[in-house]
Amino acid sequence: MKKIYYSYSKLRDDLKALTKKIDRPFDTIIPIARGGLTIAHLLGEYYDIREVYAINTIGYNDTQKLDSVEVFNIPNLKNTKSALIVDDIVDSGDTLIAVLDILQKRYPDIQFYSASIFYKKSAKIAPTWYLKEANEWIDFFWSVDLKDKNDIDDR
Amino acid sequence: MKKIYYSYSKLRDDLKALTKKIDRPFDTIIPIARGGLTIAHLLGEYYDIREVYAINTIGYNDTQKLDSVEVFNIPNLKNTKSALIVDDIVDSGDTLIAVLDILQKRYPDIQFYSASIFYKKSAKIAPTWYLKEANEWIDFFWSVDLKDKNDIDDR
Repeated sequence: MKKIYYSYSKLRDDLKALTKKIDRPFDTIIPIARGGLTIAHLLGEYYDIREVYAINTIGYNDTQKLDSVEVFNIPNLKNTKSALIVDDIVDSGDTLIAVLDILQKRYPDIQFYSASIFYKKSAKIAPTWYLKEANEWIDFFWSVDLKDKNDIDDR
Repeated sequence: MKKIYYSYSKLRDDLKALTKKIDRPFDTIIPIARGGLTIAHLLGEYYDIREVYAINTIGYNDTQKLDSVEVFNIPNLKNTKSALIVDDIVDSGDTLIAVLDILQKRYPDIQFYSASIFYKKSAKIAPTWYLKEANEWIDFFWSVDLKDKNDIDDR
C-alpha cells in the first residue's frame, strides 16, 4: 500500500481548513486517544476551550466474533451542552461508533459532533466534518518523527 | 517580559533529547491537559505505549485564599505499575503537586515520574526529568499556529 508522510505543517494547514468547515458551536472537545490528542490540543487553543477531555478506546480483533471496541476513561460531562469528538482518521468507523454510542447513552441531553482530518469512504459512519479522504497508509508525524534518525527540513 | 516562539521542530528536537534523559521504565503516560497532550501523543508513539490517559486540572486564583488546583477526570490506573506524568512547563509547580498528590493517594502502589520540556527554577517542585529552564514567556506552536494569518516557513 502506498505510504504518505503527514507532516506537522500539513496538519497545521489542514486544521485551519477544518475550522472553516466547522459551523456549529461546542463547549467541550473530546479527543479519542491517542490519535486525536494533538488535534484536540490545537483546536482547544484555537477555540479557547479549556474543556479538552480525552477518552480511551481499545480495539479487539477476534476472528471468532465481530471486531469490538472497548471505551474507557469516559470524561465527566456534567457541564457540557455540546461536544466535538476528534480523531485523526475515521477508518472502519468502529471506534467512533463505539464512542458516540456510550457517550449518547450516558449523556442523552448533550449534542455530539465529530471531526477528523481523514475519512475512508468504506467506513460505517462519517464524522460530522472531515477534510480529506484517505486512500493510502498515512505516517502521521507524531508516529514517526521521534524515531527518525535523519532530520528533514520540512519536519 | 520577553516572548519566544516555540515551534514544532523545536519540540521534536527537544523530545528526542528528553527521551535520552528519561532512564526509568513506565507503562502509562498521563498528560496534564491541555499542555501535555501533544507531548504525550508523541511520547506514546515513541515508546509504543497505548496507555496514554489524560487528566484535567483547573487553577483558581483567589486573592482571599491560597491558589488552588482542582484535579478531575482522573484515569483508571488499575493495570499501571509505573506512570510518567507529562506537561509542557512546570511553572509555579502547583498543578504538578496537585496531580501527584491525588494520584499517589488513590494509587499508593504505583510509581509516578514526571517530565516536562520547561521548568522554572522558582517552582515549588521539579519534575523528575526536564530539559530547559524557562526565563521568558513561551508561545507554544499549539497555542498560536492556527491563529496566525501569515504562514512562516519554520512553522
